[in-house]
Order: sequence, then C-alpha cells, then structure tokens
Amino acid sequence: MPDLLSLAARIGEHKVKLDLADRVLYRYDAITQGEVPLAVVLPETTSDVVETVRFAAAAGLPVFPRGAASGLSGGSVPTTRGIVVSFTRMNRLEIDPVARRAIAEPGVVTLAVSEAAAPFGLYFPPDPASYKQSTIGGNLAENAGGPQCFKKGVTGDYVEKVEWVGADGEVHVSGRNAYDIPGLLIGSEGTLALITKAWLRLEPLPKYSRTLMAYFKEVGQAAEAVSRAVASGVVAAKLEFMDSSCIRAVEEAFSLGLPVEAGAVLLADTDGDDEQVVAEELELLAGAIEASGGSVHIAADAAEAERFWLARRSVSPALGRIKPFRMNEDIVVPRSRLAAVVREIRALGDESGLPLVQFGHIGDGNLHPNILYDKDTDLEAVHELAEKIAMVALRHGGVLSGEHGIGLMKKPFMKAALSAAQIEDLVLVKKACDPQRLFNPGKVIPEDI
Amino acid sequence: MPDLLSLAARIGEHKVKLDLADRVLYRYDAITQGEVPLAVVLPETTSDVVETVRFAAAAGLPVFPRGAASGLSGGSVPTTRGIVVSFTRMNRLEIDPVARRAIAEPGVVTLAVSEAAAPFGLYFPPDPASYKQSTIGGNLAENAGGPQCFKKGVTGDYVEKVEWVGADGEVHVSGRNAYDIPGLLIGSEGTLALITKAWLRLEPLPKYSRTLMAYFKEVGQAAEAVSRAVASGVVAAKLEFMDSSCIRAVEEAFSLGLPVEAGAVLLADTDGDDEQVVAEELELLAGAIEASGGSVHIAADAAEAERFWLARRSVSPALGRIKPFRMNEDIVVPRSRLAAVVREIRALGDESGLPLVQFGHIGDGNLHPNILYDKDTDLEAVHELAEKIAMVALRHGGVLSGEHGIGLMKKPFMKAALSAAQIEDLVLVKKACDPQRLFNPGKVIPEDI
Repeated sequence: MPDLLSLAARIGEHKVKLDLADRVLYRYDAITQGEVPLAVVLPETTSDVVETVRFAAAAGLPVFPRGAASGLSGGSVPTTRGIVVSFTRMNRLEIDPVARRAIAEPGVVTLAVSEAAAPFGLYFPPDPASYKQSTIGGNLAENAGGPQCFKKGVTGDYVEKVEWVGADGEVHVSGRNAYDIPGLLIGSEGTLALITKAWLRLEPLPKYSRTLMAYFKEVGQAAEAVSRAVASGVVAAKLEFMDSSCIRAVEEAFSLGLPVEAGAVLLADTDGDDEQVVAEELELLAGAIEASGGSVHIAADAAEAERFWLARRSVSPALGRIKPFRMNEDIVVPRSRLAAVVREIRALGDESGLPLVQFGHIGDGNLHPNILYDKDTDLEAVHELAEKIAMVALRHGGVLSGEHGIGLMKKPFMKAALSAAQIEDLVLVKKACDPQRLFNPGKVIPEDI
Repeated sequence: MPDLLSLAARIGEHKVKLDLADRVLYRYDAITQGEVPLAVVLPETTSDVVETVRFAAAAGLPVFPRGAASGLSGGSVPTTRGIVVSFTRMNRLEIDPVARRAIAEPGVVTLAVSEAAAPFGLYFPPDPASYKQSTIGGNLAENAGGPQCFKKGVTGDYVEKVEWVGADGEVHVSGRNAYDIPGLLIGSEGTLALITKAWLRLEPLPKYSRTLMAYFKEVGQAAEAVSRAVASGVVAAKLEFMDSSCIRAVEEAFSLGLPVEAGAVLLADTDGDDEQVVAEELELLAGAIEASGGSVHIAADAAEAERFWLARRSVSPALGRIKPFRMNEDIVVPRSRLAAVVREIRALGDESGLPLVQFGHIGDGNLHPNILYDKDTDLEAVHELAEKIAMVALRHGGVLSGEHGIGLMKKPFMKAALSAAQIEDLVLVKKACDPQRLFNPGKVIPEDI
C-alpha cells in the first residue's frame, strides 16, 4: 500500500482526501462511473501538482486529472485504482485587457473567464453546454466546442501558451512559436501531461445579436435547412438542433412552451458589430428554413432569446429525468450528409426499441445521438445501437468525436476509425511523453499499451 | 563516400541529380544560401521518398526537404553536406467539391489549389505573397500565412490530415481526431518528418470584395489607423502596410504610380457574401484611417484593386533590385504596440545607416522589417541591427516569426525568445521523432543537439 499519508504530510492534509465517503464522489463524470480512487488530491498550486506527480511516479500509481467532471465521455473517470487530481481549487484568473488575454488555472469555470472579461468588452468564445460548471482544464483536455464553435472555433483555437507538469515531474511552459507542444497536449485528455495554467486569447464582444427558433414537421427537413443556409453563405454564431424526442423530454421536464408535436427544432443566433448585417443574416437563415418547410419564430428581445436558448441548455438535465443512464455520442458528419445521417439514426433508434434522442451543433455537422437506458436495459443492445450509430457517421465520411473527446465511451470505436498503423503512432506519442503510463491510463488509445 | 548511384539505380536515374552543375542550384532559397548538396533527389511518389529516407538513414546522410525554395528564412537551405529532396515533381492535386477538400502532394503550387477549386466556387485561403511559386509542402513546413490570415487563419488551420514519411522510413497517415500529430508536424520546418500528402479544407469564395489604399505622412499613423480600425470591430480580409522606403523601392522598380512622398501606405480588402456589408466595412475602415490622419483612395473596380495589390506583391522583387541581399525579419507584435514598434524600428534603421524597409500584414501585427545589403556591407552591422529589431519585438510582447518560420535566419534569436527549459522540450520532441537527426538538421532548435 503506497504511503498516501506521506503525500498528505508533504503538501498539506486538507489537500488530500483519503476517507471512502469523500473518495466515492470522485469516481463519476456527468454520464459514467469508474473505480473509486485510493486518494483524491486537491492541489492549490502548481508545486502541489509537481509533488503529487512525483509521489505517484515513485509509488507506481496512475493519476486521473479531473475538472468539474461535467464531461460526457468518461474522460475524467478513473479506469483503475489510483489518484484523482481534482483541479477545482486551482482557480486563479487574471485578465489583461490590453493584450486581450486571460491567464487561467485549470480549475477556473469556463463562464467565469467571459464574466471577468466582460467589463473590458471582451469574452472567451468557446462555450460548451456545461459552461456554467465545466472548467478550463477539462475544456483543454477535451478540446471542447460549443454552440459558438461553428463561427468561432474550439478551445484550442484560443490557447496561446500552457504551463504543464510532465511525467518527469517537472514544470514546463510551452508556446506555439516552435514545435506546437500546446497543440499536442490540447485534446489529449490528460494522457500526456497535466496542464496547470493556460494563456487564453479573448475577443471583443459582438455589439449585436439576434435569435430565431424554427419548427419542422420532420427531422431531415431541419438538416436540409442547415445545408441550404450554409450553402447560401450564412455564418450563424450558433446553429443548434433538437429532434422530437428531445423536445418532448425538455417540455415534460421544464414546461418551456416548446411545440411537442414538431419533428425537430432549430435554434440560431447571428451576431456582429453592424445591426443591419446581423438582421440580414437572420433573414437569409429564415429564408433557408422556410424553403425547407420550417416555420420561423424570431425572438422579439433579449429576454425571449434567453428563453429560446434555455430550451437547448436544458437538454442534458431533462434526459437525466427520463432514464438515469445514457450513451451520449458526439459524431461529426459532412453537412451535405446531415439529412441522410439524421434520418438513418432515427430509423436505427426506432428499430431498436430503445429511447433515442438527437440534438447538437448541427451548424458544423456535430450531432449528439443519445441512447437512454436504466439498470434493467439490455446493455448489449445499447452498445450495439451505439456502434451502429458510430458506423453511420464513419460511412458518411464523419468522425466519432466533435467536442466531448474519446474518453471511455468511444474508445471501442477507435479501432474502426483508425488503422492499426495510426493507433501505433498514438502509442508512440504516449510512450514518448508518458513512458510509465502515469497519466489517465486507459483513455484515447483503443488498446492498452 | 555513400553509394549515391545505388539510390539512383533503385528509384530511377532521372530522379537523382549528381552533377555539380545541377546540385549548386539547390543550395539556395529566396534569400540565403547553404552547402552544396551531395545529391538532389526529385521523388515522384511517396515510395521514392521512403527509399530515399531509408538510404539516407543507412548512409548517415541528412535530408533537406525543399519545395519551391521561395522561403524567406533559410528553412530549406542545406546546413551541411547531405541530400536535398526537392518535391516539385510530386504535384498531384485532386478536388472533392462535395467535401470541400483538396488532396495535394507537397509539390503542388499554392495558387494552383485555389485555381483548381474555383470552378466549384471554392478556394484555399492561405495566401503567402509568393503563392504563385511557393508549394503546399513548404507552406506546411513553415505554417505559412499571407494577407488573408488576419481574417482566415494560416495554413495549419486548413489541414485535415497528412501523410508523412518518418525517420523510421515508414509511411504514416495522421488525422486530427486523436493526438494532433499533424499539428506537431505543421510548422516544424521538415525537422520531424517529410509530409508527402495533405488533405486541405476549402472554403466558398466570398461573393463580393472591395479594396482601398491609404497614404499617411508618418509611418506610426498607419499603425494607429490599424489599431483604431480593429478596435472598432472591422475584420478586413487583408490589411497590409508598406513604409516610405518600401514605397520608393517599388515605384523606382516598376513605376506603378505610388505616392513616393508618403511616409506609409495601407492596403486593405473587405469581403463577404453581402454587398452592402462589404461596402460598410470598407467605410468603417476608411473612417479609422481618416481619424488617424490618412487619406483614402477606394478602388473603383476590380482592375484598380488588382493594380493596388500589385504594389504589395512587388515588394520582394523590388527590394532585390536595390541590394542583392536582405535580412528579412518576420516579427509579430500586439496590435496595441504597433505604432511604437514601427517607430522604434524606423529609428534603429536611421541610426544604423543601413537601408531598412518595413512592410507586412499589419492587420495581425505581423511586420517584415528588411535590412538590405550587398557584398561590401559590414555583415556584423547587419546582424547587430537584426538582433536589435528582434529585441524590440520581444520587449513589446511579440514573437520572432509570424509566417516565414525560424529557419536559419531567426535561429540565433530563439535563445532570447525561449527559456533553456523550453529549448530542452523542443530537443526532446526532435529526439523522439528523429533520433538520428536525419531531417533538416540545424533548423528550429537554437543549438545543435
């Protein structure tokens, strides 16, 4: 048994949780569960992280980094007995308005960056649905996107520099001006290093924005509207969709006044610094929707826009009320294939008899088909359906993860997405950075190394 | 002496140049020169590249990858006796209009991608000034930008996947859906691997564009106009600047009708799919210029716009007529510091007595101060001035390379830009990918490893 008390003595007892009652709380993310960790470390400084990594390396214990655990792919879940490093106490945040930069520790909540930047007319564009809970560290680990990523890009597009603790137990600082080491770490799910600080690029807040909601009889029409709008040159700030099962789930849970008879709903924002342009872009989008058979409802004011968006942000909590568990996919397909993919997945769901909902950032082809289940469900049937959905994405030239990461959930499908030689290259990267398999073992790479 | 004839016999004699008269042509890039290579290989297929890498590894000879050699940092120049691999014959290009994708071999000329995509209403945004000569392989090696990168991003932002030959002599294919191996290779100047194919993302051509040219009495005013315009929310498609020495050089060489008495010229495009928006954005920009003391000239039509831009594209050839050699810097500074930086560099140039011109993609803070010289110039004075300019950039929070890469030219300054620990991390990446130092030795990393 490794001497966890000695680690507690070294960095401070209040930073190391050893009681079972505490430890069981750190086996979950938002969607799945893993092993109960032997210890939970709550570092307050980078040197606490260094001490923890050195201890773990000496003890031969794996380290599982964790932010808010709001992830949807099991990326932060312990796959084996080890140490969970929960970054929630490392939440220092500094805004440099002249350089348009935020310097954030990994435990800073995503939305807090934009809130701190707002007095300077700036914001941090990446906006995962969980941005009121999720942390910058988790966003970096999964290279998270959100509704705005269609127009503004994903987390990695806003990173100028990172501080990280390597498997060597040393603190490193890497910019993007030579070999792109930050780019390698971003999206690697904490399997290569622990990021302890990030220099983030901020953007000026757009002066105007407009919102619309559209209803469609049939789910494929919504996908057609998106293809049509994008082809006509509309660059919406956000472009989200929910299918009928999703609409009904949100409505039953929260009574927001959504049209439960609709086959699909689209939600979209346009934004910019010229009021007329923003309005014109919304009109172009409305035209594409009507040409595809949808009906358009334009938000009269900011309050109504906020109500429209509440529907989308309520999807995850609403689904949790129907069934306690869900298999949440995160496929991305070419926009030209959206209608076909959405219809094929709907048909697979109907055929399986399992509750299946679809929603997602349809503007960039990122869909979240979710299979809902409970403890009585045949898990094999769930996995079979999940795999069929993944294969639909791959068959249409798509990929398996848009923003949630591979984590545990999609790892079994990586073998279909990557060749043996490609997997071998991932293994080589892992071995070069983390030869001892210290960091988040069992993630990203489809087979154990 | 390695048996270069055996390589020729294996891959084909017409692919291996051994005559001195041929070989001397491959010691140069657009701005500097290196060692005469022992052999020049002109591969026609990826397997030719594999054979060459395996031969070089066995013979212990370094490999220097080369595109059009239009680079401005010495990135493709041989630092020692070895094999130049010139990719100009690997120029297959395929456009997939539905997926909005080009599949290009490294020898494809940059502009050819957009030309091939144009019939489908698509284009490839990265546009280095040399795009009529430069190749995709060179653009990937240096992660090249161009006038459009302010709005559209750099080469790496358009890469979906790469095929590459590693130091192991094997062909690898890497996408960006797991560890970002393409991101690590892009911008690594051919020091980690040889890219043999790239899957490139294409974008729809904007429907409208407008162009203006502005004259300023003093060079700092132009920088102020840019800061002002960007702060007001203008996202120009291109935003370029030339100082007085640069204007006079172009005018003397090509008589384009430029105002030789001006202290600086700005050139800008706005573009988009809505004609009115494009015009309004141009007006906003014009307002910022006038508020900074500049005078605005809006191009009446596409022909005049083309004439305006010809001035910018003529800078490099014009400078070559004044002095045969030049030290071309590629600094990037925060936009808020542009006016101070441009003035400080102008003062340093005047003080040195050496001919110094400034131009560049000022919209994103990327400046190209160029020191002109000939064989009679005191080279030490040139290097001293170059170093002072680099230090101005670093002192104002800038970096040393925006788009040309580090190559040979900026390598001496890397020690000032990076800490010893950061350099050690680069060395570790190099060793992991290329332990034998086969690929482009003497580049990127400030000291030999």
